[in-house]
Amino acid sequence: MLTGKSFIGNSRGTGTAVSGSAINPANGEKLSPETIAATDAEVRYALELADSAFHAYRKKSGSEKAVFLRTIAANIEALIDDIAARGPLETGLPEARMRGESGRTMGQLRLFADLVEEGSWVDARIETADADRAPIPKVDLRSMLTGLGPVGVFCASNFPLAYSVAGGDTASALAAGCPVVVVAHSSHPGLAEIVAGAIQSAAQETGMPEGVFSLLFGGGRTIGKSVVTAPEIKAIGFTGSYAGGRALMDLAAARPEPIPVYAEMSAINPVAIFPSALKNDSESLATAASGSLTMGVGQFCTNPGVFFIPATGEGAEQFTETFTKLTSEVAGATMLNAGICSAYANATTSIQAQPNVETLLDVTTDDFGVGAPSIFRTTATEFINNAALTEEMFGPATLLVTYQNTEELLALAESIDGQLTTSIHAQPEDDISDIVEIFDRKSGRVIFNQFPTGVEVCSSMVHGGPFPSTSDGRSTSVGTMAIFRYTRAVSYQNFPQQNLPVELQDANPLNIKRMLDDKPE
Amino acid sequence: MLTGKSFIGNSRGTGTAVSGSAINPANGEKLSPETIAATDAEVRYALELADSAFHAYRKKSGSEKAVFLRTIAANIEALIDDIAARGPLETGLPEARMRGESGRTMGQLRLFADLVEEGSWVDARIETADADRAPIPKVDLRSMLTGLGPVGVFCASNFPLAYSVAGGDTASALAAGCPVVVVAHSSHPGLAEIVAGAIQSAAQETGMPEGVFSLLFGGGRTIGKSVVTAPEIKAIGFTGSYAGGRALMDLAAARPEPIPVYAEMSAINPVAIFPSALKNDSESLATAASGSLTMGVGQFCTNPGVFFIPATGEGAEQFTETFTKLTSEVAGATMLNAGICSAYANATTSIQAQPNVETLLDVTTDDFGVGAPSIFRTTATEFINNAALTEEMFGPATLLVTYQNTEELLALAESIDGQLTTSIHAQPEDDISDIVEIFDRKSGRVIFNQFPTGVEVCSSMVHGGPFPSTSDGRSTSVGTMAIFRYTRAVSYQNFPQQNLPVELQDANPLNIKRMLDDKPE
Repeated sequence: MLTGKSFIGNSRGTGTAVSGSAINPANGEKLSPETIAATDAEVRYALELADSAFHAYRKKSGSEKAVFLRTIAANIEALIDDIAARGPLETGLPEARMRGESGRTMGQLRLFADLVEEGSWVDARIETADADRAPIPKVDLRSMLTGLGPVGVFCASNFPLAYSVAGGDTASALAAGCPVVVVAHSSHPGLAEIVAGAIQSAAQETGMPEGVFSLLFGGGRTIGKSVVTAPEIKAIGFTGSYAGGRALMDLAAARPEPIPVYAEMSAINPVAIFPSALKNDSESLATAASGSLTMGVGQFCTNPGVFFIPATGEGAEQFTETFTKLTSEVAGATMLNAGICSAYANATTSIQAQPNVETLLDVTTDDFGVGAPSIFRTTATEFINNAALTEEMFGPATLLVTYQNTEELLALAESIDGQLTTSIHAQPEDDISDIVEIFDRKSGRVIFNQFPTGVEVCSSMVHGGPFPSTSDGRSTSVGTMAIFRYTRAVSYQNFPQQNLPVELQDANPLNIKRMLDDKPE
Repeated sequence: MLTGKSFIGNSRGTGTAVSGSAINPANGEKLSPETIAATDAEVRYALELADSAFHAYRKKSGSEKAVFLRTIAANIEALIDDIAARGPLETGLPEARMRGESGRTMGQLRLFADLVEEGSWVDARIETADADRAPIPKVDLRSMLTGLGPVGVFCASNFPLAYSVAGGDTASALAAGCPVVVVAHSSHPGLAEIVAGAIQSAAQETGMPEGVFSLLFGGGRTIGKSVVTAPEIKAIGFTGSYAGGRALMDLAAARPEPIPVYAEMSAINPVAIFPSALKNDSESLATAASGSLTMGVGQFCTNPGVFFIPATGEGAEQFTETFTKLTSEVAGATMLNAGICSAYANATTSIQAQPNVETLLDVTTDDFGVGAPSIFRTTATEFINNAALTEEMFGPATLLVTYQNTEELLALAESIDGQLTTSIHAQPEDDISDIVEIFDRKSGRVIFNQFPTGVEVCSSMVHGGPFPSTSDGRSTSVGTMAIFRYTRAVSYQNFPQQNLPVELQDANPLNIKRMLDDKPE
């Protein structure tokens, strides 16, 4: 039974001010219950609880944190029918996606549980003393990673589970030893409440300190600003628009104590197609490209928003024809919310007003809340010289940019801003070294002969990239390396064994991998 | 023969506008030559060269970068008599310190050379494909660290060699694959020119791309602002005052593309002394404490600026007496420059104007440019309630803060801002767990029964700490972990072997340590 109330540590919100309701994007109808804004006092208390919880929580062992994370996953699993019932109403996404994304969410929690239970992630380094070293003795020094502090997490509209309340940022922050204060997204408060219940219960069932988790409902900007500017908060995780991310970055940088913001913002994920790839099999390529573009109504941060394709040559025309035809056959579908749907309509309208842009496909639809695929085409010269053509169109729209020769292709590659992904389609005999040098400078993940959608949650995933695709290209939001965004290293000098964290004690009771005097132990 | 001209890639500055001269802090006399400001065009050209050099330099092998770094060290070694002759005139530091700090500088360069030659630092991760995985096949994904881009480095006044032109930030940035544009410090342009010559020669001798290094002389703020706001620059390294560091942070955050700033700013490095330590041997402790306070005229970022000591009890009075007596016997000495000397005088005057602060030692001197040790005393209550008492006094001054009981000691520990270091003096039978929990939350390095001065350059050193000791507590400026501040990870998906960086190829031709399918290879 949903109540629309916040989760403040082990309690629930007691405010009465209605802040809104979820809206069914398929018909514009309000969904009950109304959400109740957390009061100022509740927000403050959640922040203070997070701060005090941090002192104890960061010292929890990897095994204890693993039990907590796995209990969250188990509690979500027990609620999966509720999620599958409520999610489609709030998000327009199908039930199967709700179940699949729940699976990914649980998988992420269990992946981080495994990581911290195993324990080697702390990068333990031990350098032993040498009293005889000249001219001065060498001290005993040992370092390891530790949690940064309480983290503010903003839910994403396009991943209501995997990048929301118990999503990647929450999982990695909790794994790192950081309490989390989540700011709910106004589009899917029901899912937020279901999942927050799973976390709150897990925290109590596993004896975690109160305040290790809170969830705040309310006017997103007011509550969000309170969280970002709170002295208790030491880092922010966010997935959303460039405008939203930049606003958080500016707020965080202007604090008396600036804090890191990990905002995943916008990307057009260029796909560079070599002539050889079209010559080899333009049909299969067009089929796969269309599938990547239209999957999930194009509402993925890795959606291929621009293709660099040869203007002429074997297979060029056929690729465009097939790509357009297949894409035109994909029905429009309900987008995540009215704001996203109207932004998509505006973006596809705006691009048609740009000079020298052809519309190859524009399935304008009056169906309520529906976004349908669009394809536009322009030239390399136009793309390079008109910044408006590099704007993200969030949804199933893409821009084909035709190039005349390798020089133009490389100029296109060099012209792009920082991206989450870049892709190259070529044949093994092609020399791709020049474009790889550009693309691995411009993006977090470079892909060969595959498409950018589908982000594996694993140890080698970099789902991040140079600004403006993210606020901080040094970090990833997906995969185990995401734990590092919420950590810092601490050194212990000349410490008695019993006062060292177990990870740094000589006996290595956890049997983790360590660096001992510059060698693997 | 010094000329006072900038180093712009492989060339020298051609401007004519005099920006100043080094001043001998011992007598206030100008030292020749006059320094010539880099022209706006030269600054721009240095930045553009750095950007274009980055494309090639970041792809240099670890061995090639190692040769470059070692050649810089060798070239510095060849100039060590010039450094030893010029340095004392500019800095007031003795010749032995110039030779010692040159040794540290060369040692750092060689340490990073070893690190990148060995190669495992890139954290190579390989996850192989699994076509049979259900529901979707697993892709081949591999990640490693790569350079972030050109780095702007600001020289430190207090380490004219080890944290200046070829210092820790330059060494770690070059090791990471990042070109460096150094902004010279106005206090020691002669040393800057000597060392820059060593780097410029090394870059040419080892065939590095032009622009991998430049050094800019000129009005620090103007040139500095040009560097921090340049689109080519992707990170900043700085050691200096809070005001200077914060100004750089604000400039960097306000850029169209915000960039990370690694500023080491200010710290008071609290030393907590337990009653048992005084009981055990207050004389030895006082002797060591006085040595740490007065070494190098107290001009170290790890100088112990505050001691938490028992108000009463065995050895308490004796500690204070001996500490004061020994410190009073240390002669004042020339400080680094007139600005630092007058700031030190102001700080020690200001603190005496604060209520309930006793002056135990105040060797006011009229000797030109000289700073002499000072010791003040106050109570825990006063320290916790008067923020003015937590200001850094850069120089050989410290504040003894007396506490009545463990509760007050822990309150003192909790009251401090982020620090580079915290220290605990106790006996093995003491329970130090409560203060360790506070100190390792507040600082980058926690020290037991030793003093914070003396920073080992090694793999487990964290010379960094929560704000405001640094701008970014996730990073260290000393030791091999400093390379990570100038890197980001990149993933390669489904890449042909020959197009992968060698670090990620199946054959592992460099034989580096890697993670293969979540296990050490």
